[in-house]
Amino acid sequence: MSNKGITSRSESYSQWYLDIIDRAQLAENSSVRGCMVIKPYGYAIWENIQRELDLRIKEMGVSNAYFPLFIPKSFLSKEASHVKGFAKECAIVTHYRLKETKDGMGVEVDPEAKLEDELIVRPTSETIMYDTFSRWIESWRDLPLKINQWANIVRWERRTRLFLRTTEFLWQEGHTVHESHEESKKQVIEALEMYKRFAREVLALEMYGGKKSESEKFAGAVDTYGVEALMQDGKALQFGTSHDLGQNFAKVFNIKYINKNGELEYPWQTSWGVSTRMMGAIVMSHSDDLGLVLPPIIAPIKVVIIPIYKEGNKDKVMEFVKDVESKLSTVVDRVHLDERDFVSVGFKFNEWEKKGVPVRIEIGERDLEKKMVTIVRRDTNEKEEISVNSIGNDIKIILDNIQSELLKRSQKILEEGTTQVSSYKEFKDILKGKKGFLKAYWCGSKECEDAIKYETKATNRCFSKTGKGNCIYCGKESDKEWVFAMCY
Amino acid sequence: MSNKGITSRSESYSQWYLDIIDRAQLAENSSVRGCMVIKPYGYAIWENIQRELDLRIKEMGVSNAYFPLFIPKSFLSKEASHVKGFAKECAIVTHYRLKETKDGMGVEVDPEAKLEDELIVRPTSETIMYDTFSRWIESWRDLPLKINQWANIVRWERRTRLFLRTTEFLWQEGHTVHESHEESKKQVIEALEMYKRFAREVLALEMYGGKKSESEKFAGAVDTYGVEALMQDGKALQFGTSHDLGQNFAKVFNIKYINKNGELEYPWQTSWGVSTRMMGAIVMSHSDDLGLVLPPIIAPIKVVIIPIYKEGNKDKVMEFVKDVESKLSTVVDRVHLDERDFVSVGFKFNEWEKKGVPVRIEIGERDLEKKMVTIVRRDTNEKEEISVNSIGNDIKIILDNIQSELLKRSQKILEEGTTQVSSYKEFKDILKGKKGFLKAYWCGSKECEDAIKYETKATNRCFSKTGKGNCIYCGKESDKEWVFAMCY
Repeated sequence: MSNKGITSRSESYSQWYLDIIDRAQLAENSSVRGCMVIKPYGYAIWENIQRELDLRIKEMGVSNAYFPLFIPKSFLSKEASHVKGFAKECAIVTHYRLKETKDGMGVEVDPEAKLEDELIVRPTSETIMYDTFSRWIESWRDLPLKINQWANIVRWERRTRLFLRTTEFLWQEGHTVHESHEESKKQVIEALEMYKRFAREVLALEMYGGKKSESEKFAGAVDTYGVEALMQDGKALQFGTSHDLGQNFAKVFNIKYINKNGELEYPWQTSWGVSTRMMGAIVMSHSDDLGLVLPPIIAPIKVVIIPIYKEGNKDKVMEFVKDVESKLSTVVDRVHLDERDFVSVGFKFNEWEKKGVPVRIEIGERDLEKKMVTIVRRDTNEKEEISVNSIGNDIKIILDNIQSELLKRSQKILEEGTTQVSSYKEFKDILKGKKGFLKAYWCGSKECEDAIKYETKATNRCFSKTGKGNCIYCGKESDKEWVFAMCY
Repeated sequence: MSNKGITSRSESYSQWYLDIIDRAQLAENSSVRGCMVIKPYGYAIWENIQRELDLRIKEMGVSNAYFPLFIPKSFLSKEASHVKGFAKECAIVTHYRLKETKDGMGVEVDPEAKLEDELIVRPTSETIMYDTFSRWIESWRDLPLKINQWANIVRWERRTRLFLRTTEFLWQEGHTVHESHEESKKQVIEALEMYKRFAREVLALEMYGGKKSESEKFAGAVDTYGVEALMQDGKALQFGTSHDLGQNFAKVFNIKYINKNGELEYPWQTSWGVSTRMMGAIVMSHSDDLGLVLPPIIAPIKVVIIPIYKEGNKDKVMEFVKDVESKLSTVVDRVHLDERDFVSVGFKFNEWEKKGVPVRIEIGERDLEKKMVTIVRRDTNEKEEISVNSIGNDIKIILDNIQSELLKRSQKILEEGTTQVSSYKEFKDILKGKKGFLKAYWCGSKECEDAIKYETKATNRCFSKTGKGNCIYCGKESDKEWVFAMCY
């Protein structure tokens, strides 16, 4: 445990993760098992993510809409592989009324208010949406239909972990319907590429993206594509997925359209999503032993100004500070002046460091004459003095630089964390050591994939490229290289 | 039924309401009883509302956060009047797992996966939030705490009606905690005034706002304030509420703080919210027999451009149209060019009229030489010709004018729809005729209030002013005038 209450990564990576979330005030466990409270500072990051992502989703011609929280139990039985493959751990509503207990001191479930068809709190919305789509779609004129929903999702997880795996989480789910498989497949890739671009441009994260193996795909999909980021402990984190649903759901939900030749056809569908899980990826990618490190684009506060004064010179210092603040605010948004009187300057330094504010400006009396201020970059923790005259533009350049340096760092982590392996021994050795992504050939059989998973705990994350090699497990010739990793 | 598939208001106001929602594609009923699907066009209005409201909420120094969807049943028993007064119709989660049926064809609830303490899908979040607040608040330094949540809410309504009363709805709920009752009461009024300003500035709606009577207040509150709008059929619609919670919840959830004198005290709380019910108010206030009418600020499309061409002159017309579009778009946002080839011009006119787009621009070949275009205002349905040269600024002025004219119209409706009454006979006569708001003195007794409600179906909406008069029902002297109305 460091003096700032954050366990170091070398001591315990998983405790470090929880300490960062706690000290940066991002989220906490609630009184409801597995459900988190997203605290104001954490939620402000999520709002920035939402805004940036929503822009990119709309640029693909997708419209937002809202569908019911509840799904009739019977809907989940319709698509056989969806129901078989999808986890059956979910919240089930069976009653719709409480009544007062006999002693008048509390409430209990009214046994008379029992639902005939129980309702499931949505674990994903394919079924409830496609039931609706079947009424919306009549002809090719109604296609493509591109809908996105921002919503809360519930999956009854046994073991939960803030952001990474919680019973309730927030996400966006895109659902599109197309005239041809060619067009829907293009949409699947477009969504995947959008996520990768978003991760790079906004979250400063580099990642792999590609098709999943049969056993790792979404229940009910023809193909699933995933984007996979690398955490500092060498484990992968699935960041988002994009599914080619083929005509599977169209057939069971009876979505049909009249094509340009006047014939009735089943359309082709996709779905894709990312969730508050991303928040976990952000925490684990950039942060250090001092606390959270945030890319400026998603930082609730980009620059914090901390005035340093004593009883006698407060007015003088604050006048200068306010001047700096107003100069800066004309060029940079989300500038915060920490005027609190009841905590020390040292406390403020610590607090904003832990919260990952990209740039800290310290202003004391000695800075007044020089017209210079001290700034500290959170990504490198380097101090420098800059002139007040051009402070707006200078800080803007520094923020842009932090954003791009964090991405470069992430690219380097991914590159250095990826190993090309050709023998199973090497594969196992690396997983015992630095871990990371392992690029290896695999024959495509479920037996080899399962054996690798069982013996090493590493799973097939996604397709890498076509080439020529031998299956890492059975040695059979293969033309497909895949990315393996231990994962969250 | 008009030729556009919209029932006229005079024929059936309630069917007219549903027709508008259907034809403007705002929302529809889902396969889940009482739960609606908010369609893309309706949701786009909601997004505009959210953005404008969120700005104003943040201006009050409130931060967004997110709390669990589920509330432990035991939490609801804590505040006696909250549980007694609050409707007990809610969705109750009793199980957390499905299993395959024996025939393998479906799923059923796994009886072994039964929760010990059942979970309630939040009908409002006071209890789950304040349980959390009790851990967040320690000293006066943590106050005021001002939190807002955008969330979905479930109340098991018997009779539902799109937007106005649905089992699931979307809302924002603000929850604040203060050091003194004086400060919290100020917050209650600040939120109420914010809603009124928002309604005026954004939704172009005038309304009454004031304290509710004892019997109409929120379960668990010391006082409830409400804002009440008047619909075209003379019925009131409660648009939002703001509650003074006193120390009631603080006491049962054990929220305590150390004040500046070092003493442990219960803080003072408020909560306030508005919901997708507002969408119903928008539909019913401004719209006419031709369809929806939208204030420009919340219109997903402010201006629609409809090109009019034949086979031979399409390129020529479209070149001019694109030029107009780009000129306009530099000044006005949310401009939409309807380029569809497979529907007629008349169909387009109808469609955008029904959807309430504030300004329609028609451009045909004859407009090219004159450099003039025809515009149609949705609020007055008046046509005029305007020059292309200054089209951006001219349309901007027209949009501003529509926004302010709609507010004036709403102010007039409220004014003309309010009657000062001094006898119970007059009171009843007005309710049989034009209805609207009735300002009348009331003695304050529950007996009179209940009798009025039972005999006339009109309820006490909110406090009006202090003065001198006689109770409309019992004739006793009273110093308080109240606003009565039949309501949604």
